[in-house]
Amino acid sequence: MFNYVEKLKEFIRFPSVSTDPAFKEGMAGSQRFVSELLGSLGFKVEVVKTDVHPIVLASRDGDPSWPHVIIYGHYDVQPADPLALWKTPPFEPTIIGNRIYGRGAADNKGPLMTNIAAVAQLLEENPKIPLRITFLVEGEEEMGSPSFPKFLSAYADRLRKADFVYLSDTALPNEQQVVVTCGLRGLALFDLVVTGAKGDLHSGLHGGVLRNPIQALAEICSTLHTPEGAVNVPGFYDGVLDVEPWERAELAKLAGDGKAYMDFLGIDAFYTTPGFSPFEAIRFQPTLEFNGIGGGYQGEGTKTVIPSKAFVKISCRLVPNQEPDRIKGLVRDAIRARAPKGVKIEFVDQHKGDPYVVVPPGRPNTPKGQSPVLARAFRATDSAVTAIWGRPPLYLREGGSVPIIADIKKVTGLDSVMLGLFLPEDNLHAPNESFNLDVMRKGVETARRILSGITAS
Amino acid sequence: MFNYVEKLKEFIRFPSVSTDPAFKEGMAGSQRFVSELLGSLGFKVEVVKTDVHPIVLASRDGDPSWPHVIIYGHYDVQPADPLALWKTPPFEPTIIGNRIYGRGAADNKGPLMTNIAAVAQLLEENPKIPLRITFLVEGEEEMGSPSFPKFLSAYADRLRKADFVYLSDTALPNEQQVVVTCGLRGLALFDLVVTGAKGDLHSGLHGGVLRNPIQALAEICSTLHTPEGAVNVPGFYDGVLDVEPWERAELAKLAGDGKAYMDFLGIDAFYTTPGFSPFEAIRFQPTLEFNGIGGGYQGEGTKTVIPSKAFVKISCRLVPNQEPDRIKGLVRDAIRARAPKGVKIEFVDQHKGDPYVVVPPGRPNTPKGQSPVLARAFRATDSAVTAIWGRPPLYLREGGSVPIIADIKKVTGLDSVMLGLFLPEDNLHAPNESFNLDVMRKGVETARRILSGITAS
Repeated sequence: MFNYVEKLKEFIRFPSVSTDPAFKEGMAGSQRFVSELLGSLGFKVEVVKTDVHPIVLASRDGDPSWPHVIIYGHYDVQPADPLALWKTPPFEPTIIGNRIYGRGAADNKGPLMTNIAAVAQLLEENPKIPLRITFLVEGEEEMGSPSFPKFLSAYADRLRKADFVYLSDTALPNEQQVVVTCGLRGLALFDLVVTGAKGDLHSGLHGGVLRNPIQALAEICSTLHTPEGAVNVPGFYDGVLDVEPWERAELAKLAGDGKAYMDFLGIDAFYTTPGFSPFEAIRFQPTLEFNGIGGGYQGEGTKTVIPSKAFVKISCRLVPNQEPDRIKGLVRDAIRARAPKGVKIEFVDQHKGDPYVVVPPGRPNTPKGQSPVLARAFRATDSAVTAIWGRPPLYLREGGSVPIIADIKKVTGLDSVMLGLFLPEDNLHAPNESFNLDVMRKGVETARRILSGITAS
Repeated sequence: MFNYVEKLKEFIRFPSVSTDPAFKEGMAGSQRFVSELLGSLGFKVEVVKTDVHPIVLASRDGDPSWPHVIIYGHYDVQPADPLALWKTPPFEPTIIGNRIYGRGAADNKGPLMTNIAAVAQLLEENPKIPLRITFLVEGEEEMGSPSFPKFLSAYADRLRKADFVYLSDTALPNEQQVVVTCGLRGLALFDLVVTGAKGDLHSGLHGGVLRNPIQALAEICSTLHTPEGAVNVPGFYDGVLDVEPWERAELAKLAGDGKAYMDFLGIDAFYTTPGFSPFEAIRFQPTLEFNGIGGGYQGEGTKTVIPSKAFVKISCRLVPNQEPDRIKGLVRDAIRARAPKGVKIEFVDQHKGDPYVVVPPGRPNTPKGQSPVLARAFRATDSAVTAIWGRPPLYLREGGSVPIIADIKKVTGLDSVMLGLFLPEDNLHAPNESFNLDVMRKGVETARRILSGITAS
């Protein structure tokens, strides 16, 4: 039988950091691994060149009377730094207890392998099973999928013929409760660079004369939230999608324990948009975060310099009806208006992604014309999860972003069924990332049932 | 004749970065170079071990009826980073026009070599000249001279027998006007570290729940100055030494051009303590500066992380009557009081130094019991500068810090005569540091006249 744990180990060994050109070989290896694996399962594999990292498109025709499912995943991972904080080497998969450690174990190599394993097992059991599946595995998710829009336009006609997208690149709140993600936050990212004097200055010879760019940067950053925790940028919340009562009720079933969450994070106070619990804020509210800051001397000891420049990396998570370019414009306008005299500011644009929402069948706000196949896919998912996990999934919007889901919807009209498989303790984007192998086993079972359970009848 | 330019080149070639253990060999080489050079001039050289970098003490007995001068200098330099901004290699001295480029060229290798050259030439001309000189050359100035207090206590009885200290580790405002520095700012340095969650977090999974430590750090830093430019810490200005009318008048002779200074810095607005021109603020007012800031992802592209920690390196320049430990306490108290909820703050102590002031003879505030030898030294300096540079020096307090000058005064009672030799365009503590060789030539002439001109009669 298809040994998905061994395959996952192989997959993790490729250091496929898409944002860093130093990992070019790891990216190429990771892509070849996926292509060869899907080829070995009988899929027709195309490696679609892009400007950065290619997209793997692997299809199986199956029975035209069956729904055609696109299974999405990504073969790239986040940078592993800070390396010093890893307890095992990030690209040497290590099993400890029921967990496999390694960069990408949970985001997204483990969950993608889960879905590949489901298909592999179904094909092993019945090589003639009429599954109609297209794997779509990209290599630029962690850089914001810059090549995806171009790919989508070029392949729109083909992709549009599918019925829906299935993926596991979202979260499971705990080992007991599966969540089907019905919304994703978008992204708007850019760097702010503040320049004071034209060169670094000696703080004795020139200190007390000019505004230090670190101070100017701090002054700007300190204005971007209210003391209560909302984003303090005019227009930022305009048109933000309301939260439906059923959404709040569904989330309430998770029975989040604030104290336990605080302990998990290691903090002693929450700081959220007023009117939202921390659990609600993550899923239903937008954010403005600082992902990195730098400037001047950062080494050991001291250097009494007034730096010429300081920068901060800003990312906004967006919710439906927040258009990324509009939000970037609003934040930049606020920064320009608040920048103190005596410094220059510049913006370095980074990537962006639209937010996304899909409403499952049978809800008060389900769109009238929802595709019957999509509705069937949701129902197959519901019964598979109930059978394997012992309770039905919750239907929730999530705080994370998979920007291409909104792009796919925009270009092809296809919605996505997102079954979450990574846990909060999996340390995504952080040191000591891991994936729970019990979750993986149940995930394989669940995906098998879903894929074999959506018939066209 | 003593070829001081060649000797200075040799001196600069030693990469003597005292704060970075990676430069241990460069430090040892730099120290040996100074010891051997002074030994070759007939000085009795002692290399005094300290906990970090040794102090070179080189003495010549001379005629007991002559004043005994301690000539101070330091053989260590600032770190050279950011290396990418250097146009020539920092430790490969390069002469372009009338300037010699290299880390330490102006701070302090060039000025120290100027004074060594003066002594060498006097001895060449008259080997029996009755000069009584002790060279005191340390290797920890750029780290805040941590070993100096211990050395001072141990050698206090010996040093106390000298009459005054002579040094060139201060600034010349322009090539025409020499300044004798009558005050130095002190230093109080520490790092502030802000911790939010116990580990780095995914900004999608957890964004919108907690106060980002970069934000908290920005909030704290943004409170430490008033909008007008004063340090906003209660008690910070308590007891700050008043500025005498003659000090303002003396400074006014420099006729600083605000527009030209702005252009030099590359800024379009000053930001100073209210009530002080930028030129006055540097010399007479204390500061609080941010020398470096860091936290989260600083590489290319993006990483959507909420960092666990962020830090800032803070330095205060102090003026007379500001005690460094008291100031550190006040700033830390203000930070503690202003730190927002939900984050932890820690301080990492760095070095400190007392401010210093000496009043030349014949001023309204000259101390009644000023040593006649010190008064003579000031007068010899005045006439030497007038002869060589064509106009008398100005007597001004300076913005920079040479913390050991205050320590020497405290422990031995000796005051210092500080003749500045580096120019604003020498880029101290910054990339492309250089030293003006015309200034060096005149500096050698001036020091020769001063040292041979202070007789005991």
